[in-house]
Amino acid sequence: MSNAPILLTPGPLTTSLRTRQAMLVDWGSWDRDFNQLTASLCEQLLAIIDGAASHHCVPLQGSGTFAVEAAIGTLVPRDGKVLVLINGAYGQRLAKICKVLGRAYSTFETAEDQPTTAADVDRLLAADPAVTHVALIHCETSTGILNPLPEIAQVIKRHGKRLIIDAMSSFGALPIDARQVPFEALIAASGKCLEGVPGMGFVFAEKTALAAAEGNAHSLAMDLQDQHAYMAKTGQWRFTPPTHVVAALHEALLQYNEEGGLPARHQRYADNCKTLLDGMAKLGLRSFLPAEIQAPIIVTFHAPKDPRYQFKDFYERVKAKGFILYPGKLTQVETFRVGCIGVVGAAGMQAAVNAVADVLREMEVLDI
Amino acid sequence: MSNAPILLTPGPLTTSLRTRQAMLVDWGSWDRDFNQLTASLCEQLLAIIDGAASHHCVPLQGSGTFAVEAAIGTLVPRDGKVLVLINGAYGQRLAKICKVLGRAYSTFETAEDQPTTAADVDRLLAADPAVTHVALIHCETSTGILNPLPEIAQVIKRHGKRLIIDAMSSFGALPIDARQVPFEALIAASGKCLEGVPGMGFVFAEKTALAAAEGNAHSLAMDLQDQHAYMAKTGQWRFTPPTHVVAALHEALLQYNEEGGLPARHQRYADNCKTLLDGMAKLGLRSFLPAEIQAPIIVTFHAPKDPRYQFKDFYERVKAKGFILYPGKLTQVETFRVGCIGVVGAAGMQAAVNAVADVLREMEVLDI
Repeated sequence: MSNAPILLTPGPLTTSLRTRQAMLVDWGSWDRDFNQLTASLCEQLLAIIDGAASHHCVPLQGSGTFAVEAAIGTLVPRDGKVLVLINGAYGQRLAKICKVLGRAYSTFETAEDQPTTAADVDRLLAADPAVTHVALIHCETSTGILNPLPEIAQVIKRHGKRLIIDAMSSFGALPIDARQVPFEALIAASGKCLEGVPGMGFVFAEKTALAAAEGNAHSLAMDLQDQHAYMAKTGQWRFTPPTHVVAALHEALLQYNEEGGLPARHQRYADNCKTLLDGMAKLGLRSFLPAEIQAPIIVTFHAPKDPRYQFKDFYERVKAKGFILYPGKLTQVETFRVGCIGVVGAAGMQAAVNAVADVLREMEVLDI
Repeated sequence: MSNAPILLTPGPLTTSLRTRQAMLVDWGSWDRDFNQLTASLCEQLLAIIDGAASHHCVPLQGSGTFAVEAAIGTLVPRDGKVLVLINGAYGQRLAKICKVLGRAYSTFETAEDQPTTAADVDRLLAADPAVTHVALIHCETSTGILNPLPEIAQVIKRHGKRLIIDAMSSFGALPIDARQVPFEALIAASGKCLEGVPGMGFVFAEKTALAAAEGNAHSLAMDLQDQHAYMAKTGQWRFTPPTHVVAALHEALLQYNEEGGLPARHQRYADNCKTLLDGMAKLGLRSFLPAEIQAPIIVTFHAPKDPRYQFKDFYERVKAKGFILYPGKLTQVETFRVGCIGVVGAAGMQAAVNAVADVLREMEVLDI
């Protein structure tokens, strides 16, 4: 097990043995001990955004996308309209969710290396008064680009509109303070920067908005208002919780706080990202994004031009040396991605760079 | 950890250490090794119902209810109509799902100790030609009652209608053969009689029906047609899978087959149930259901009449002796429930009965 490769992916990622060992216990989902675990989890999560006064934390079974769909389905009224800001695959997915759910929406798309700006949002909201909600990806995992959340949030508030943030890949590593950044919902998941295992998401939902959302949802299982009301009343999840995943996330959060919370997590990932970027640059591998819009979460690299480079072969060889990389997700340019998150430090990232260097040599890839 | 109480609940239940240890590895969700794990899982699940020729196995993130909702949302066309057969809380939930999803439906409800009969279904289908689908709970966990699935399935087929079976608490322990029992969908989950951990469900969907279901779904995350199509093309889950839960279920299935598959699992649970019923009868505790409609999954007992009996106190005392029981779910009668499933044998069940006997003595509960 200690020989398992390090996952340099946007999640699932490498967790600590202590976190995985928390899954060696079976919990009764109706039992008081488990209810306390859930309550402690939500409390710790709310503390990360200083949101206890303004927001409820509503955990949800399933992957992060389930929680995103649940947030849109629960909080956007059936006669609402969503402005979806897009610069990658996860923004596209937000639009697809609106479409499938039958919520009116419009999209604003920038290039995959172009953050949406507050000025864009200001202009778009002025032009379309029908919009009730704006949906934004904080860090777009398809490239690693960071969108200027605080500035966009202020513009949305000024227009009297509501913001739904998909913070899947940034939450826990990049600061977001609910007392300063106004939002109706922020969504993240267990298996990302908190370094838990995948299997649940959670939504921070504004208390007043959640209370007013009864009957909005398109789904029973994804009704966050109902999920929260039941949990508030009973301390239990409405439907069977992924008990082991919950226990692992709880244990991961204890370690998160022991490490020093968000500033420490952010610093470690920033160091990882710098080690990666510097090391890859020395090999001639160019990062797709300029440094100023690069979040320290996942980095997209241009694939080498050399015809001897094939991603599949490259991937398998790097894996054999102990590191799992991630394919690119851009349609126009051939790329691959390397995550900076999970239980790994700068020494691990340097070892990954060395493995990449060795593999490129083995493959005789010269034209980078 | 070895001191954790035995879960005598309808799931999450007690799993083997080997199953939990399978969660000590982190898997890359994009990696070939994980794709093979998923493929092997689906293959083993299909083998349990002899369904490889007729059905696809579509795994889904979330609890069993997520998979039930996904099956109804994906397979019942928007202009379809569902006849929901109800004799307990999970049948009620099926109706609620239809309501929230906006699918037309009618209900047929029998008392909680009355199975639905094939004659009932025959009469109901003759009376309402608008019905396209019938939804049935195989073993209703709110009491433990078994509905006569094979007979009902034949009647539905004769009427040219389609059957959706919620087999959450029976799958893997009670025989269902897809070559003999015609159904469009059968739904179960990881954390029940297969003795995996909770966090994913799966739907066996008729191949032709699934192929025809494109565009039906009310949800992106719960669209089983899309989930299957993507998995068939790439070998991967559409959205982040609960990798550790998948690995645990895979390991649990290996043990299921080593134990002797369904006949052995059924026999062990039947022995557990008999030990429980006999032992509790000796204490004067009466089972709610007559033996002939009692599935060997979970047993509902009448609560003692003695005013010194309080479920909460009883529960905590039995827990302190190493066994977690389950509350009753009936509205008219005070009951409690004891599960027969999970990694436990007749000796464990006898120990649970002894614990109950000791606790009733301690509580001075005399009027059973």
